[in-house]
Amino acid sequence: MSDGSTGEKLTELAKRRGYFFRSSGVYGGVGGFYTFGPQGAALKGNLEEAWRDRFAVAEGHMEIDAPTIMPEPVFEASGHLEGFDDMLIECPECGATVRADHLVEDGTDHEDAESLPIPEVEAVIAEYALSCPECGAGLADVAVEEFNLMFSTRIGPGDSQPGYLRPETAQGIFVEFPRLSEYARNKLPFGVAQIGRAYRNEISPRRSIVRTREFTQAELELFVDPTGDGPDLEPVADVPVRLYPASAQADGGEELRTTIGEAVADGTIADPWVGYFMGVAQEWYEAVGVDPDRFRYRQHLAGERAHYASDCWDAESEVDGNWIELAGFAHRGAYDLSNHAENSGERFTVFRQYDEPKTVERAAVDPDMSELGPRFGADAGAVVEALERLADRDRAAFDGETVTVDVDGERHEIDVETAGFAVEEETVAGEHVTPHVIEPSFGVDRLVYTVLEHAYREDEVDGEPRTYLALEPAVAPTAVGVFPLQRDDALEAEARKVARELRAFGLSVTYDDSGAIGRRYRRQDEVGTPFCVTVDYESLEDRAVTVRERDSTDQVRLPIDELPATLAALRAGDRSFEELYSNN
Amino acid sequence: MSDGSTGEKLTELAKRRGYFFRSSGVYGGVGGFYTFGPQGAALKGNLEEAWRDRFAVAEGHMEIDAPTIMPEPVFEASGHLEGFDDMLIECPECGATVRADHLVEDGTDHEDAESLPIPEVEAVIAEYALSCPECGAGLADVAVEEFNLMFSTRIGPGDSQPGYLRPETAQGIFVEFPRLSEYARNKLPFGVAQIGRAYRNEISPRRSIVRTREFTQAELELFVDPTGDGPDLEPVADVPVRLYPASAQADGGEELRTTIGEAVADGTIADPWVGYFMGVAQEWYEAVGVDPDRFRYRQHLAGERAHYASDCWDAESEVDGNWIELAGFAHRGAYDLSNHAENSGERFTVFRQYDEPKTVERAAVDPDMSELGPRFGADAGAVVEALERLADRDRAAFDGETVTVDVDGERHEIDVETAGFAVEEETVAGEHVTPHVIEPSFGVDRLVYTVLEHAYREDEVDGEPRTYLALEPAVAPTAVGVFPLQRDDALEAEARKVARELRAFGLSVTYDDSGAIGRRYRRQDEVGTPFCVTVDYESLEDRAVTVRERDSTDQVRLPIDELPATLAALRAGDRSFEELYSNN
Repeated sequence: MSDGSTGEKLTELAKRRGYFFRSSGVYGGVGGFYTFGPQGAALKGNLEEAWRDRFAVAEGHMEIDAPTIMPEPVFEASGHLEGFDDMLIECPECGATVRADHLVEDGTDHEDAESLPIPEVEAVIAEYALSCPECGAGLADVAVEEFNLMFSTRIGPGDSQPGYLRPETAQGIFVEFPRLSEYARNKLPFGVAQIGRAYRNEISPRRSIVRTREFTQAELELFVDPTGDGPDLEPVADVPVRLYPASAQADGGEELRTTIGEAVADGTIADPWVGYFMGVAQEWYEAVGVDPDRFRYRQHLAGERAHYASDCWDAESEVDGNWIELAGFAHRGAYDLSNHAENSGERFTVFRQYDEPKTVERAAVDPDMSELGPRFGADAGAVVEALERLADRDRAAFDGETVTVDVDGERHEIDVETAGFAVEEETVAGEHVTPHVIEPSFGVDRLVYTVLEHAYREDEVDGEPRTYLALEPAVAPTAVGVFPLQRDDALEAEARKVARELRAFGLSVTYDDSGAIGRRYRRQDEVGTPFCVTVDYESLEDRAVTVRERDSTDQVRLPIDELPATLAALRAGDRSFEELYSNN
Repeated sequence: MSDGSTGEKLTELAKRRGYFFRSSGVYGGVGGFYTFGPQGAALKGNLEEAWRDRFAVAEGHMEIDAPTIMPEPVFEASGHLEGFDDMLIECPECGATVRADHLVEDGTDHEDAESLPIPEVEAVIAEYALSCPECGAGLADVAVEEFNLMFSTRIGPGDSQPGYLRPETAQGIFVEFPRLSEYARNKLPFGVAQIGRAYRNEISPRRSIVRTREFTQAELELFVDPTGDGPDLEPVADVPVRLYPASAQADGGEELRTTIGEAVADGTIADPWVGYFMGVAQEWYEAVGVDPDRFRYRQHLAGERAHYASDCWDAESEVDGNWIELAGFAHRGAYDLSNHAENSGERFTVFRQYDEPKTVERAAVDPDMSELGPRFGADAGAVVEALERLADRDRAAFDGETVTVDVDGERHEIDVETAGFAVEEETVAGEHVTPHVIEPSFGVDRLVYTVLEHAYREDEVDGEPRTYLALEPAVAPTAVGVFPLQRDDALEAEARKVARELRAFGLSVTYDDSGAIGRRYRRQDEVGTPFCVTVDYESLEDRAVTVRERDSTDQVRLPIDELPATLAALRAGDRSFEELYSNN
């Protein structure tokens, strides 16, 4: 963590209470790999489920589940094999490996060293006489290398083939487009979602679960007709957003406070689909517990944008005083499908039927071979092909009496009549279109971190300091803590029965009968359980229990009968505890 | 598939309708990697959720989420680096790589070649003059090699460290035992579950999704006190099971039809915990759609059992005429925790407090160094240590006047009085115990295949052949198909509204308005949707719709108001369609 405050305290709490911790710690661990403990796995699972509901189910999109290991041709086509690199510098003295762009950013005024070409980075390192952060050795004359971030392996024995752990889930969707398009009955737009692991062999993983080497993505690839209608923006038009456009970043300008509708209308957000998903995401992030005051959209600078993306915005959250990327919203154009089409030789298009068949003019040649054959001999075929290409490309070339074609650098003049040039009319029902891709791509681990950091609270209860996580009830790992007031067979039996009934209602429940009741409340507060139910001696008489809300510590008395439905409604946000409390 | 019947038809249906297909097909694919399409991903997700509910939530166990890449020391300790091998033979003529044990099993009468040592396998290949299945070249003199099945990679740049894709999710739990035990407040028994990817670089992946190189496991590791009470068997005692014990396999005996209670009582199932989970799994498998007539438990033969497992049973299903492993139920003893303790130097124990502090006798020495020092010089320390070890091991050795110790092969006689031998009483509150592990380990992909194969049906409806999947409503990818009777604005609006309301109730819904109604039923039948709802013109008047059940094709008329609750109850199995139908 960069600061000694919330980040450090959260990381300590996360380890102690089962949110997350560095993996394989008994063997000293290895950078960039974290394990989610019971609380973290539940929170992560709830966030994934919430994403699925909103971005796949509610939007009517498909979801698939593809392997994480993919063969080399996939990444030749996607460009990852060639270009998915970070700049690496290895200290000749101590062997430390450092990201050269980070070295430059930390040691100079350069802010976006990642977008500089390698020779320039080397020049800056030499100019500023930058040195190894580990041992202090000078790095001025050390070469900067490209380090590919994909984890590689070999598939099969013997004459094995190279395989790579996917650096994004997206490729598992793109490469299957022909089949997925059939499932969508070849109708655009259609979307395909995937939640799963992705891997990047980071040179220097850092900041706990914010930049790891193995992480979970939730991605949606929306395939749209490049000339088709955009989305209906009405549902998100009035959503307020905080935008940080590239222009403002470049000239030190301000962030914009606007709405999705306005930002798309005035062109700040260039693509309406990108705007649509930014609007949906704004509301979704708030619903799962991201603080809107520490959330914004930042447009990619020209230099940091992937070469295929015509526009890209990142969702960013502020944690530990820094802005981190939570999600990217990119218009990827036809880049991915075109590349896979070209590399595989398969068709990555959708047939777009015209409303009515169209009559089109097609220029063609029908050469008189009895003349061309004797004249060109073995070259006659090449001459015919040259005439065909010319007719297709430039029909004006056939306007005169003769036409000239180039074959292997030699020019030949041919009578237009001999070429058999003609313009014909043809009726076509439609055309093959390579869809464009709009991609909302979410990082799940970073969201877990953000939700926890934004929920971290310290206050005082009854004069004692308290730490609690003000997690949204809908995503909190445990919905309800159930306690017998004290160790007593009758109370315990009743409390276990209550717990069982709540579980049967689909609520996640922690049963706890150990220690003083105040300590049990604190334990649940610390892991973010929104509601606690206590069974006391009166409960055995009046069939009612005390329900306590985490943030306010307010308590209400509720009949056991109504408990499951009421708590489920509180968790889903269909009822509020304040209202219950004031009516009590 | 081995036969031309259900297996082939199912694989074709799976590809065409989005259950599963070979990945990266546009690049020719690569053996052992499959993608789950929209239907398959949903079915798989539902099965995982059902497993979580039963084996983690209902049992009160924790669930964690660990990385799939783990560092080398983990697999040094687990034994996978040394021993997780298959026998490989590479054809010197054509380069084909073949599992030597499969070659032997296919070409001879040997049934369990995997358990033979390599020299014996080589001898059998020579004796039977077995040849390459690809090119027919003789393999008699070709060496059989051990091929490690873990996918390896390198973590980090420069001085990188080796990493492996985990071959089982279990290690991600074992290696974190010290922390997980704290979360369980160090009380045995406690269980930790994990659902996630695992990887095995199979020499010859085969049978579609039954033996792949990347797959999903659902594992539970239950940590128990080796001297503690077993489980309460009462909930599963009467569950009928079909058992195929090792003894019956060895001598050509019969399978046993018995109950869990009896099998544990008569020792057929040696460990009560293993029996408990077999009982729970029997009922669970049936609930998610495994045909009990094609399901059994087969005990591992001594030769195929992992060396650490004291007993192991596989759950097997019959698909395409073969028995395949669905799950394993193993008593792993202290093997895993002891190995990680030894290799890491960390403590992998739980402190077991005695009911009351115990007074124990401890034999100790307190040697008189003024005598031993001068006598043994530099060896005095070694002599003292030898005395200490001896006192701990064999206090009778001190019964006489002198005692003899061995130091580096030399025997030394020492006065017992000089050794300062004494037996002291000590009060101890408890002891450190290395828990034993009971492991129910489920394969998810194979379960998907089994559930589909056991649900595959062909019949005739209205004189037309029909193919359908009789999937359990609780796990079917789509719960309800909703159709307007025909293309009509009013019908479509009403049908969309019905679909929306069902989705809001948590049901997965497919809306379909294209084609004749009969064709739409067939489409849903073929993917296993249990219920279809049709909105017709009468619906607009009487606010009721037709609900059709998949297997029987029976139809009932239900009020739109009651639809969500009724369909949810039908899906959960709380109501039956037959009952609805006969009351209608």
